[in-house]
Amino acid sequence: MNREISIREVGTRDGIQSLGAFIDTPRKVELLEALGDTGLRRIEATSFVNPRAVPQMADASEVMAHVRRRPGVSYEALVPNVRGAQDAMAARMDSVLVVLMASEAFNRKNVRMSVDDSLAQSASIKSVADEAGVRCTGAIGTAFGCPYEGDIPEGRVFDLIERFVDLGFDELMLADTTGMANPLQIEHTLGTVLDRWGDRIAFGLHLHNTRGMGLANVVAGLNAGVMTFDASVAGIGGCPFAPQAAGNISTEDTVHMLHEMGYATGIDLERLIEVARLAQDILGRELPGQVMKAGPRWQLHAA
Amino acid sequence: MNREISIREVGTRDGIQSLGAFIDTPRKVELLEALGDTGLRRIEATSFVNPRAVPQMADASEVMAHVRRRPGVSYEALVPNVRGAQDAMAARMDSVLVVLMASEAFNRKNVRMSVDDSLAQSASIKSVADEAGVRCTGAIGTAFGCPYEGDIPEGRVFDLIERFVDLGFDELMLADTTGMANPLQIEHTLGTVLDRWGDRIAFGLHLHNTRGMGLANVVAGLNAGVMTFDASVAGIGGCPFAPQAAGNISTEDTVHMLHEMGYATGIDLERLIEVARLAQDILGRELPGQVMKAGPRWQLHAA
Repeated sequence: MNREISIREVGTRDGIQSLGAFIDTPRKVELLEALGDTGLRRIEATSFVNPRAVPQMADASEVMAHVRRRPGVSYEALVPNVRGAQDAMAARMDSVLVVLMASEAFNRKNVRMSVDDSLAQSASIKSVADEAGVRCTGAIGTAFGCPYEGDIPEGRVFDLIERFVDLGFDELMLADTTGMANPLQIEHTLGTVLDRWGDRIAFGLHLHNTRGMGLANVVAGLNAGVMTFDASVAGIGGCPFAPQAAGNISTEDTVHMLHEMGYATGIDLERLIEVARLAQDILGRELPGQVMKAGPRWQLHAA
Repeated sequence: MNREISIREVGTRDGIQSLGAFIDTPRKVELLEALGDTGLRRIEATSFVNPRAVPQMADASEVMAHVRRRPGVSYEALVPNVRGAQDAMAARMDSVLVVLMASEAFNRKNVRMSVDDSLAQSASIKSVADEAGVRCTGAIGTAFGCPYEGDIPEGRVFDLIERFVDLGFDELMLADTTGMANPLQIEHTLGTVLDRWGDRIAFGLHLHNTRGMGLANVVAGLNAGVMTFDASVAGIGGCPFAPQAAGNISTEDTVHMLHEMGYATGIDLERLIEVARLAQDILGRELPGQVMKAGPRWQLHAA
C-alpha cells in the first residue's frame, strides 16, 4: 500500500484570520517556521488582503520577508484581487489561492460582488500569477451548504468547476466553509466531480469541524478519491456564527487518523503535535485539536 | 429509504461516572427525565456498582426510584457482578449490561480479575437477569486497542464474541473504550463480525471521540451494517488518561449527522440539543458537543 495524501496547512491564514487579538509578527514567523519543520509540503501562510477588512493579515508582507523558508515547502497565500496578487508576487509566494463562493448571498457578504464578478476577478488574478510563473489554485466556498441560503444545488458547483477548468486552473479546492457537509454528501459529490473532471484538474477538500463531522468527511473524501486536504494546526479557526464552535479540521488529528489508516503524509506527527501546543501557547487558550490532548494512539500507558 | 438507527444514551452512566464532583440525585433525575422526552428509546441510566469504587453511582437505586419513566423507553444499567444485578432487578431496570475487556491488562486494572473470570461472572449475571425476565446485553471493552497493551488481536475479540454467543446473549456491544479505533479498522472488524455472527446476535458500537475519530467511526460502522450506537448527550465523559480530551461521542452530534445522511432515529434533535445545554448547566462547564454550539445545519442566518 502506497497511498500518499497531501496536506495543505491553513492555520496561519484561515485559522487566525478572524481572531480578535493581533498576533505579533515574530510569533507568526515562529509558528510558520515550526510548521515548516514538520514535513508539511504546502503551507497557506497568509493572505494579501485589505488590512481594514482583515486586520490580522496587515503584516503579511513582513511575515513573509522574515520567515526562514524550508526548501521543498510551497508557501501559498490567499489573494482576493489583482492588487493582492501583485503583493503576493512581491513577497515571492510559491502559489496563490483565489476563492469565490457557490452561494451568491455569501459571496456578496464576503466581497461585495456577484459570483460572476468574482470569477472574472479570478481570471485576472490567474493572469498575474501566470505571468510571474506562480501557481494559482481556485477554491469554491460554501460548496456544500450556505449559512444564509441553505442547500447549494450540486449543479451550481458543477457549473463553477466547469468555468475554473475553462480558465485553465489546474487545481481546485471545494470548501465546506461553515462545516455543513455530511459524509454521504461529500462522497457523492466528490465521486461525481472526480468522475467528470478528475482527468483535467486536481481537486482538494477544505473541511471544517463545526458540527463534529470533519474527520468523517475526510474519510468520505478519501473514499471518493480525494488526495489533498486543507487542515489547520491545533484546529485553529472558528465559525463566525458560533464563537464556541470548532473551526477547520485539526491538522494533527487528520494526520493521526490518516497514518492509523495506513496513508502516508510525509509529516512527523510528534513534531506536529509540538507545533499544535505552540499554537495554543501563542493564542493563549485551549484549542480544539484532540490528539495533542489524548496523545497518539500508539502512546501507551503503564498498567 | 427507511434506515432506522438505534441510539443508546449513556451520558448519565459512562458520561458522568468518573466526574470528580457528585451530581445531586434530583439533578440526575432531571437529566434522565429530559432525556426520556427526546424520543430516545434506550437509556443506560446508571450502574449498580460498589459506591467506594464509583462514588458517582452511589445513588443509583434512589435515582431509579424517583425518575418518572417514559413508556416505551428501556431503562438500562451496567452491573459488574451478581450483587449489582440483584440491585438492578430490585430497581426494576428493563435491561442490564455486563462489560468485560478484550485486554487482560485493562480487565485486571478495571475489576481485579482475569477475562476468563469476568466471563464466568457474566454468565452468572445473565442467569439472574434471565430468571427475572430482564434482557442482558454483553459488552467487550478495549476491543479496538488498549492503552496498556496497544493493539488487540482481532482473534481475541472474535473468541470472546463466540463465548458470549455460547452463553446465549442476544446483543453485544463492541467498545472503543479509550478512542483508539480508526474508521478502516471499524469497517473491517465489524464487517467480519456481522458476516460471521450477524445472524445469531445483534451488534452495537460504543465509540469515544478521544482522538477526533468518533463520528468517522460511526460512518464506518454504518458502512459495515451496524445499526445500534452508544452515545452520550453533550459528549459528557472523558478519557482517564487525558483529562482535557473528549469522551463518548456526543449524542446530538451523532443524531444530527445521521439525520443529515438520511437515517431515522426517532429522536427530536432540537429537544436533544436543549438537554445537551441542560447537561452543561448541571455539570457547570462547557462540554464537547458541537451541534449545540454551532446549531444544526438547517438553522440558517440572516445575510
